Formats: sequence, C-alpha cells, structure tokens
Amino acid sequence: MGKNAIVGQSGGPTAVINSSLVGVYQAAKSRGAARVYGMRHGVRGLLEEQYVDLSDFLHDNLDIEILKRTPSSYLGSCRYKLPDPQKDAATYEKLFGILKKLDIGYFFYIGGNDSMDTIAKLSDYAAAVGSDIKFMGVPKTIDNDLMNTDHTPGFGSAAKYIGVVMKEITRDGLVYGTPSVTIVEVMGRNAGWLTGAAALAKAEDCEGVDMICLPERPFDPDHFISRVDALQKQKAGVVIAVSEGVKVADGRYVCELDGSKGKTDAFGHCTLTGTARYLANLAQQNIGCKARAIELSTLQRCGGHVTSRVDITEAFQVGGAAAKAAFEGNTGMMVGLKRISNDPYQCTTELHDIHTIANFEKKVPDEWITPDGIGVTPEFLSYARPLIQAELTPIYVDGLPRHIYIK
Amino acid sequence: MGKNAIVGQSGGPTAVINSSLVGVYQAAKSRGAARVYGMRHGVRGLLEEQYVDLSDFLHDNLDIEILKRTPSSYLGSCRYKLPDPQKDAATYEKLFGILKKLDIGYFFYIGGNDSMDTIAKLSDYAAAVGSDIKFMGVPKTIDNDLMNTDHTPGFGSAAKYIGVVMKEITRDGLVYGTPSVTIVEVMGRNAGWLTGAAALAKAEDCEGVDMICLPERPFDPDHFISRVDALQKQKAGVVIAVSEGVKVADGRYVCELDGSKGKTDAFGHCTLTGTARYLANLAQQNIGCKARAIELSTLQRCGGHVTSRVDITEAFQVGGAAAKAAFEGNTGMMVGLKRISNDPYQCTTELHDIHTIANFEKKVPDEWITPDGIGVTPEFLSYARPLIQAELTPIYVDGLPRHIYIK
Repeated sequence: MGKNAIVGQSGGPTAVINSSLVGVYQAAKSRGAARVYGMRHGVRGLLEEQYVDLSDFLHDNLDIEILKRTPSSYLGSCRYKLPDPQKDAATYEKLFGILKKLDIGYFFYIGGNDSMDTIAKLSDYAAAVGSDIKFMGVPKTIDNDLMNTDHTPGFGSAAKYIGVVMKEITRDGLVYGTPSVTIVEVMGRNAGWLTGAAALAKAEDCEGVDMICLPERPFDPDHFISRVDALQKQKAGVVIAVSEGVKVADGRYVCELDGSKGKTDAFGHCTLTGTARYLANLAQQNIGCKARAIELSTLQRCGGHVTSRVDITEAFQVGGAAAKAAFEGNTGMMVGLKRISNDPYQCTTELHDIHTIANFEKKVPDEWITPDGIGVTPEFLSYARPLIQAELTPIYVDGLPRHIYIK
Repeated sequence: MGKNAIVGQSGGPTAVINSSLVGVYQAAKSRGAARVYGMRHGVRGLLEEQYVDLSDFLHDNLDIEILKRTPSSYLGSCRYKLPDPQKDAATYEKLFGILKKLDIGYFFYIGGNDSMDTIAKLSDYAAAVGSDIKFMGVPKTIDNDLMNTDHTPGFGSAAKYIGVVMKEITRDGLVYGTPSVTIVEVMGRNAGWLTGAAALAKAEDCEGVDMICLPERPFDPDHFISRVDALQKQKAGVVIAVSEGVKVADGRYVCELDGSKGKTDAFGHCTLTGTARYLANLAQQNIGCKARAIELSTLQRCGGHVTSRVDITEAFQVGGAAAKAAFEGNTGMMVGLKRISNDPYQCTTELHDIHTIANFEKKVPDEWITPDGIGVTPEFLSYARPLIQAELTPIYVDGLPRHIYIK
C-alpha cells in the first residue's frame, strides 16, 4: 500500500467545496492511498490532532453524492495563519511530527488566498527539512480572486445564486409600481466579481439591476445619491448591487462611515457589514424615497440548493487533478483552471507554482468595468455566463435538501 | 358569450401567487368568460383604469407554465384600503362604473387579510346597490394568518424556503467550530407561522435551530441573553430564528428598542426591520460572543427557485375553485383549504363567508408553542411538514429561472 493522504478545508465555505473534497478523496483512493484522512477545521485542528479517516464516514456512493451536494465545509474550516517558520519553527515541527505519525505522503488544502499561503509555507518548509510529503493547493473561493486560475470553484454557484435572487428581487421590487430603491449588499472585500455577477440577471425576461458598485472603483456618496435620485425619477423599483467592500476616496469603507469601527479577523481583515443599510438610509434621508437594504449574507456562499453544474463539476475536477499531480510527484503547486474557449465553453486544469498565487488578489480588470464605473461590460458577462450554466439538483428528502455531516 | 371576469393581486407577493392567477384565468375561461382582465396593481390601479386583457399576454401553454413559476405578482400589487362606503360612496361609484364599462360579471381578488376586507366591502356594496357582480376572495399570504382556511397558499413555499436556508445557515455556522451566534430574522408581524417553520430544519441530517422566538409570546431581552449565553457555552454555531414582530412586555417592537421610530404603511402597520441586528448587537455586548444577523428579507417571499409542489398546486386549485364558485353564483366568499388528513396528507377546498375572514388574524395556537416559549411542538411540525413536500423545478434558461412579466 502507498502512503496516506490528508485533506483539509480552510477559509470561508462555499456551496461546492465538498465536491472538491470528493475529488481529492476518490482520486487519492484510486491512486493507492491506504487512507485518506480529513483534518477537522483545517491546519488549526490538525495541530490539535483533530482528524478523521474519511472511509469511516463515507459508507457508500450515495454518501458521496450527498456530500458533493452538501454546502459548507464538511470537515470544518479555520481562519488560521501559519507563523513565519524563521520565528516559530516549533509549530512546523509539531505539524510535521503529526504528519509523520499518520504516515502522510500527500497533503491537500482546499481554500483561497490565505490557504495557499499555508501550502506555500508548508512546501517551503518541507523542502528546507528534506521532507518528501507533497503539498497541493486546491482552489476554492466564491470571491474569484485567486491568481493564475481563470476562475475559482465556488464562484460559479455563488454567481448563479446572485443572478437568481437578483431576478427575484427585481420582480419583487416592481410589484407596487411605486418608487422604491432596493440596495443589495454582495460579498467580495476587494474584488467585485460577485457584485458584477448581479448583471447576469438582465435577460429577455428581466430588466436587470440599475447600478453596480464594485470595490475596484472609489465610491462617491454624492455621486451615488444623484444617480439614485435620477433613476428613481425614471422608473419604479430601482435595484442596486453594491459590494460590501466599497470604499470612499480616503480609503474608509462605506460601512464605516456611520462612525462604527471595523473589527478584524485572524488575518487582519476588517469585518464588513451594513454597507447597504447605510446607503439605504442615506438615500432615504437625501431623496426621501422608500429604500430598503438586503444583505445576501452567508446565504450566497452556503446556498447548496442553487448550484451551477459547471461549477460543481469543476470543483470535483480540481480536487481530482490535485491528487493526480501529487501522486505524480508534484508539490508546492495549485491546480488552476484554464479556459480554452467561451463558446462553446471549454476548460481544463493546469498546475501553477504556489508562490505565484499566495497572497495576491485578482480583481475585475479595469476594461471590464463600464466607463461610468457603475456597471460591467459584455466581456464580463461572456466570462461569467458559462460558469452559471446548468444545475445539480439537491436530493430532496421530506421536503428539504439532504445533507451529510460529521456528528 | 358570458360576461367578463377580472382578477387582481394585492398585498405582499409570494412565490406562488401567480399559480392562483393561472387557476382563476383558466377556470374562468373554461366556464365561458369572454375575457379575463387583469387589474394592474390591484384595486388602486383599477380605479385609474389600469388593466390588461390577459389573453394578450399569455400566448400559449408555455407562457402559462412559466407564469405559474414566476414569483411576485405578475399583475403588480397594491396596499390600498377601500374607504368606508358610508363616507366615500364616490370611490365605489367610480369602481362599479369601470366594472360596468368592462362588462364584468366576476371579480377575483388574490390576497391576504387586507384584500379580503376589499372583497367584503365590494360585495356588501354590490348587495346594497343591487349589482349582480360576483366577488370572490382567493387566499394568499406567506404569513398564514387567514381565518377559516387550514393554511394559505404561499405559506408552504416560504416555509420550505426557510427550512432550506436554516439547514444551510446551520451548516455554515458550524464551520469554524468556534462559538458563534447567528440570529435569523423571519417575516410575520403578529403570527409566528413562518418563524416556527425554522423548526422544520431539524432532521436526521441537521441539528436544527436552537431557539425560536415567536411574536405570540412577549419577548424578554434579559431571558433571551441568558439563554443565548447558556447555549453558546454548550455548543459552537448557535442558530436562532426570531420573528420581525417580537415585542417586549410593554408592547414595543424589539426593533424599536434602539430608539428608532417605526414608520407606518397605508394600513397603519409599522415597518419592521432590524430585530436580528439589534439582538446580535445585544448578545455581542452582553456576552462578548461573535454574533451575526441575517434578515431573510424579501428573499423568503419571492424565492421562486424554491417552491413546494403541494403549495403551488394548492395555489392553482384555490384560484380554480374561486372561479367555479363565482360562475355557480356565489359572491362575498373566500375559498378556504380544508385539511382532511395529515398522513396521508389530503386537502380540499370549501367556501367561507368573507365577513368571517376579513380583518381577523390567525395566530399559532398556544398549545403548539413549547412551554418554555422558545420552540414549537411536534403538532406544529405535523401541521407544517406536509405543506413543504415535493418541488416544482423552475424552467432554467441560460443558467437562470425563466420568468414572465408585463413589459
């Protein structure tokens, strides 16, 4: 038998992150891994020796099918930043000791930017100490902000969710035929991919949203108010998508303008919330229009009941490709998605040095934002539309989607 | 040819209100209505002679299928209270003049309590002036608070949506394995049916929510905080469902406790929002735990992508039954749903005098609330579970559910 594999999930969950877990699990098994362990709550849990043997929990192919369709991280997640190995070698010694005890040959980490930082540090440390464990990154983030991959698994389903609810919010907002402004707050701290996805709602059967405020552009409250004023004079049911991460010119987040101070997480990121509420109040005060705020909140990242089949399939593929690459001897890499064509949509996987990915952020290209700064171009839509195609229906039991979890 | 029919939609939209519209339209057509008009924006629009001939918009059976699956009110809605006919006969004379001009024999209004008030007033006025127009109410409200009907179309799909997202929020809330409290604000001003539906999430594959605060019980912030404190010491990822309409003992809404004054709508109802946010801040300040607020907002009423097949079918049936009853000579009535059995679930329709419905509110029975006041009993679940069964999948086109609307 070969060595064992271990896989972890890190950072914010998505609707399809468990499809990547299945991809790693099945490919590692079929390539001869004796056991495939799962870290509970990522590296943080592993450091406390919290792990499971996945075979103890996945009993048959129905479990596998349900796991693919279960949103949020099956193994649990963490927001844990590995220390600088120069300053804290002990953490690395402990971690590699645990990996040795478990006879691990292959280490997979499914996550975003911060998770790729973990893979970079661990593979560097392995090289420095002569460990032959293979470390592979599997991309995951609804934010779509990873470098060297055309897009990230998780984005397509979140974008589809946003397209779906923006259509529904548009229908709802027009119901009374009276002036109203709905401001919808979308996730994406520094990159406006998800906020831009609101533009997908526009179609033969939907008027679409009226304004899109991306974090890539400085936000001018006065300009915003005058635009909203003009819009609500033209039509009933104005709908606006705004990123949680929009900032005014001096660098403050819009959600901080009400005087509240932002809190920070383990990576020093400010906790953002209340942008839409602040802007709705601002519109109400300045224009006197009826304005409501909707935060899509965690619903947009855990909406397992609306997944893109393209996305969930690619999530599975990158997991499998990571296992293949590791078993073929690669380490310190992330699997990226490479788009071959838009129409017909074709996409394959490739490997990238983890150091070209960790700690960078991919933003919406300037030329994909309309000159007025409040919309996205047809090129953005041609990019995003293939990623929301087709559905993978949940398995409904007694009226609700069936999930699987570790009790 | 017979006389014409007219149908309107009123009050807050639902995911299945257009299925009732199709029910009325098809049954009225098949019973010989020459034309079936649709009021734009209910009675308010009709008074401005805003109406359409539905045949001009529904060209084939695919349009009909898509209309059934389109959330929000296809014809537009209104929140308009008819005046007291003793004080303002002119409005009634105008309205009946328009109905006469359109050669209307049958008038259908799809809505909730306030809409049934409209039917009551119009049928009373018709009796007083000797008009033979038949006035029928078709029940609709996600709030499930209408009298004399086992439940209301719209409730089942909203309850299913709430069950689905509560499962997803539960999965998401447990992902880090660290203490966190998620407070989810659910619609339902005075009746806790929808908030109670959060209990549906608990199943073999889901831990379920930890506390349910219904508006039927006075809300005690101190007791709430001590319960939350106890819960978050026992487990990671506490999830709480709270009605937007919870009030403290002195009658103030919880969302008013931050000092903001409520606004009122045309029916004198206070606009409620911010309950979950207030309580999350309260928990954070008093316990120091990580607490987040999620408002399900309009997503719970316009979620056409998650409908209950039982609900959407019954919505269609009550529309058809209303047309049948009107064409058979009934007036001043609402179609109610009468449950025959829970297991197997069987349900039929019956007629009720509109005066026994308008302006009453049906709350969750006291005996269906647990003695501690923070949960619902198995009887509640036996009542609600049949209503969320099975799905009617949207027709997806280019990645998003297809809708139909009047341009």
